[in-house]
Amino acid sequence: MSTVWTQARRAARMNPSIIREILKVTEKPGILSMAGGLPSADTFPVAELKAACDRVLTQAPREALQYAASEGFAPLREWVAGRVAALGMHVRPEQVLVTSGSQQGLDLAAKVLCDAGAPVAVETPTYLGALQAFTPYEPIYASLAGDDEGPRPEALAALPHDAPGTRFAYLLPNYQNPTGRVMSAPRRAELVDAARRAGVPIVEDNPYGDLWFDQPPPDSLSSLWPEGSLYLGSFSKVLTPGFRLGYLIAPAELFPKLLQAKQAADLHTPGFNQRVVHEVIRDGFLDRHIPSIRARYKANRDAMAAALREHLPPGCEWQSPEGGMFFWLRLPAGLDAMALLPRAVDAGIAYVPGAAFYAHQPDARALRLSFVTLTPALIAEGVEKLGRLLHEALEVAAEPAP
Amino acid sequence: MSTVWTQARRAARMNPSIIREILKVTEKPGILSMAGGLPSADTFPVAELKAACDRVLTQAPREALQYAASEGFAPLREWVAGRVAALGMHVRPEQVLVTSGSQQGLDLAAKVLCDAGAPVAVETPTYLGALQAFTPYEPIYASLAGDDEGPRPEALAALPHDAPGTRFAYLLPNYQNPTGRVMSAPRRAELVDAARRAGVPIVEDNPYGDLWFDQPPPDSLSSLWPEGSLYLGSFSKVLTPGFRLGYLIAPAELFPKLLQAKQAADLHTPGFNQRVVHEVIRDGFLDRHIPSIRARYKANRDAMAAALREHLPPGCEWQSPEGGMFFWLRLPAGLDAMALLPRAVDAGIAYVPGAAFYAHQPDARALRLSFVTLTPALIAEGVEKLGRLLHEALEVAAEPAP
Repeated sequence: MSTVWTQARRAARMNPSIIREILKVTEKPGILSMAGGLPSADTFPVAELKAACDRVLTQAPREALQYAASEGFAPLREWVAGRVAALGMHVRPEQVLVTSGSQQGLDLAAKVLCDAGAPVAVETPTYLGALQAFTPYEPIYASLAGDDEGPRPEALAALPHDAPGTRFAYLLPNYQNPTGRVMSAPRRAELVDAARRAGVPIVEDNPYGDLWFDQPPPDSLSSLWPEGSLYLGSFSKVLTPGFRLGYLIAPAELFPKLLQAKQAADLHTPGFNQRVVHEVIRDGFLDRHIPSIRARYKANRDAMAAALREHLPPGCEWQSPEGGMFFWLRLPAGLDAMALLPRAVDAGIAYVPGAAFYAHQPDARALRLSFVTLTPALIAEGVEKLGRLLHEALEVAAEPAP
Repeated sequence: MSTVWTQARRAARMNPSIIREILKVTEKPGILSMAGGLPSADTFPVAELKAACDRVLTQAPREALQYAASEGFAPLREWVAGRVAALGMHVRPEQVLVTSGSQQGLDLAAKVLCDAGAPVAVETPTYLGALQAFTPYEPIYASLAGDDEGPRPEALAALPHDAPGTRFAYLLPNYQNPTGRVMSAPRRAELVDAARRAGVPIVEDNPYGDLWFDQPPPDSLSSLWPEGSLYLGSFSKVLTPGFRLGYLIAPAELFPKLLQAKQAADLHTPGFNQRVVHEVIRDGFLDRHIPSIRARYKANRDAMAAALREHLPPGCEWQSPEGGMFFWLRLPAGLDAMALLPRAVDAGIAYVPGAAFYAHQPDARALRLSFVTLTPALIAEGVEKLGRLLHEALEVAAEPAP
């Protein structure tokens, strides 16, 4: 087709989200979907948000509906600076930039820090949305080898040799999407020490840190190296994703360029949304609200853990997550999670194949299961179907080739 | 200062908005500011928005507060596709991408279309925010020579010679920010014809088109060349900027990459905001509401036109705008709008020096005056002060050098 448009070189690297395509397939009615990364809509504080909308539009309509500062609503920035003290961080409100979800924080970080061909280090596997945000800036990815506690410190230490000029290491310490794993306190200290020695700063993404079940996670990576860390937070998992509200916390030297990138991207995050959320949370609402999310998700986690133990065939591997929203399941040798997905959908269930979460060589045996969108009873039913599917697939795989 | 951070090459080109810095200075109490590009807060439909927030959170709270489609809320996309028929455009809802203000549309367009070193053609002068959005993608700018009707068609026709490989021409047909001028119908046809022959597609930005005073502007540029045009629209000037809601309309071949860029940038525009705005406008509200904005702004325009005629010294040049929010004033030879600004602020008024709006050689004698944020009485007072300042400055300029 002849065209008058010439696309940017980067556009060739931008591709539709595999998850998004999968979710389309799995939106059929009747599918028990464990695929989505959505928080439970049962946790949205509808009454509080409704009352706050009314108060904001009664008390400050002209300000809430007008253009606003690119930095964000000052009382919200102050609230964030105070909030992260619980993670061991000492932050001034001037370091807080309100973003349109933490996804925008990823975009702004890459815009300010990534040049075409310069390396960015990511976990193996890592959050797919981060790869999508970074890729338009044409980095090359360095995949950090990891274990059950997160990336290996040696992998970070080797970056000056393996990927010289790495712009940052993108790390998700708490209940990582997709694996659900949390970094131990010693691992955090080792990673920060290795990063500091390697001269590789950290972009720390923490959307799930509040969703712990038995004990809070250790202090943030940023608390251990404030001047070498850019921290991303979000209200999506503890309040609502539909307001698209997140924030980044940056060292003073980086803040001005991030602010200019924000201004260029969308002028500012909706002032109305910022004021409504601040109105809801200003009096300590989250300290009352989040425990109810934790209790709900923990019960769901328990239901899925029990169902996995009961229904999955030998050879499947998983850890029971201590927080967050996801189980990460590794299928027995010979099975391929992507290849099995159409049969899973036929059987009435859905998951996300793990392959989507790798910057390089994917693990075809991995898949991600969300435990927060279905009820415990439906989780049991869904996992039972998954178990039946896997048993059948293993029998087929065990048959001699014709 | 030693640092562990390496910034992207593009960051060196990103600078604080001059307007933003000026606005900070002019936010002193008591300043009669004609500097801001803000719509009048008196036009915000507070009661309608409040009722719509309540209805959305009553009728569809789980959907409005959950993650949503990157394309935007389907009924809003349908509304937009229907709305632009009045501009001569035949658009399918699938071509509409909801954005976080039209500023984000500028960012996404540049992300998908701009490579470092490839030209982008802009008007002389042009919207500062567009330069800010494009610049991080490191284009080189081709400034199109213009007259009172907009860019000259010859300037577009010369692009294949003057700036080969120009990715697009960024054009603002209606009541342009900063000059306030509208393109005539013949000029539109000539420009589109020249662009088509030159093989240079158009990014058309139309935030002010609804704000006409006596007669609507001619059909959009995009209506004349749908497959070669990317159209940007906004709710900021006709409803509220505080919800950050805009849209782009793209040819089918460009839509998928713009959608992926949107997804990478912030996943989606807040679903809550989209539903609330759709709830307000679905029944034809804008057709009742916008005429009241037009009447208000026209009265303000008249007040400023009268005050300029009464108070400004000979040698000042301006056109009375037929819509929008701005007068563009050219000072007599020898005066410099930027140099005069501190004295203007001392005198209790503020404007934006025109220099900020040029990609290349600025016109130091130009300045922008908004007529929509002050009342007619305060406009008269502000322009009188401006006139006094200019008279004094001309007297000083006329004195022989000591």
